[in-house]
Amino acid sequence: MLSAVRHVDFWFDFSSPYSYIASEWIEAAAARHGRVVRWHAFLLGPVFRAAELRSPVDHPVKREYALRDFERSARFAGVPYRAPPKFPLPTQNAARVFWWLEQSDPARAARWAHAGLRAMFTREVDLSDAIALRRLAGECDVDPDLAEQAWNDPVWKQRLKDETDAALTAGIFGAPTVIVDGEMFWGNDRRAQIERWLESGPF
Amino acid sequence: MLSAVRHVDFWFDFSSPYSYIASEWIEAAAARHGRVVRWHAFLLGPVFRAAELRSPVDHPVKREYALRDFERSARFAGVPYRAPPKFPLPTQNAARVFWWLEQSDPARAARWAHAGLRAMFTREVDLSDAIALRRLAGECDVDPDLAEQAWNDPVWKQRLKDETDAALTAGIFGAPTVIVDGEMFWGNDRRAQIERWLESGPF
Repeated sequence: MLSAVRHVDFWFDFSSPYSYIASEWIEAAAARHGRVVRWHAFLLGPVFRAAELRSPVDHPVKREYALRDFERSARFAGVPYRAPPKFPLPTQNAARVFWWLEQSDPARAARWAHAGLRAMFTREVDLSDAIALRRLAGECDVDPDLAEQAWNDPVWKQRLKDETDAALTAGIFGAPTVIVDGEMFWGNDRRAQIERWLESGPF
Repeated sequence: MLSAVRHVDFWFDFSSPYSYIASEWIEAAAARHGRVVRWHAFLLGPVFRAAELRSPVDHPVKREYALRDFERSARFAGVPYRAPPKFPLPTQNAARVFWWLEQSDPARAARWAHAGLRAMFTREVDLSDAIALRRLAGECDVDPDLAEQAWNDPVWKQRLKDETDAALTAGIFGAPTVIVDGEMFWGNDRRAQIERWLESGPF
């Protein structure tokens, strides 16, 4: 008898530096413990508005620290990082393409998530720019015309809204959020706690 | 020739659970690398107001997660923790006593800091209550009458205001904040980064 696949749920936003950093270790961490990552693209913007929160870079006193901490946290994790020249920027089109791909092939959607996050945070690719996003699709063996159709399609717009609502309903208020066995961990900086949980369960 | 003492600056608030958790590992971490912790009591309230920030427990959507994360982060650090029945609560009197003690004996002030944080977060001691605070002073071999004089003394009220202003000037917006060689780390969850910095310098 095959045992059921055990998941690690990874909620991310394409414009979140800490989501990018965590995306680079979450799969290996899950795999070490026989788990599979289930990726969930959502939008922080509506979540922040609903929760009366702001991005750290939108706080005058936090902004400088946050920009420095993104880079330092990436170096600490051994992950390449180049600060996007425009930041933050709207990435809903990338997220809609994610859900379009996810419907037929979750692994392909996960590759798209990696490609989008790496483009944004290591190559200065502007994910809000249609031409850049079409080019990125091409690099990922995704048809650029179909990708553009998807991000303009009300079906995938609605799906992203629904997923963002689902995040709010689940009590999510930031990204990345990792959920393991119903336990919620917010932030790339919960890595050690997540790894302990995966290793030996509740603590 | 004796080399100059090298410090780790530890900015804390007596009502901050993450300050308490970090207070339990910061001295050992510093000592492993020949450093001495310089403690700085300040008030998060005025800092949050100046920075337009709120405590996580004052955010409806964050509160439940935060309360759970305090306990989980304490367990993860191997530190005893009991949620204070009243939280948050005003702890400026404990902070004023800290600065009064610090003037003549920083090590004694550090013992007071530990005593106050442990009383608050493991023994349900209400630091906003004058009788409880006098009793805590007595347990620490601090004269309760002198302690009460200190927390009512305009000199120590002003000193705490000045230190809180100094925190703002230094760009501090949360607690604990650890400063090593001019590098700022915010939060108990920057422990691993702080330890790496102490071990091998800038990264």
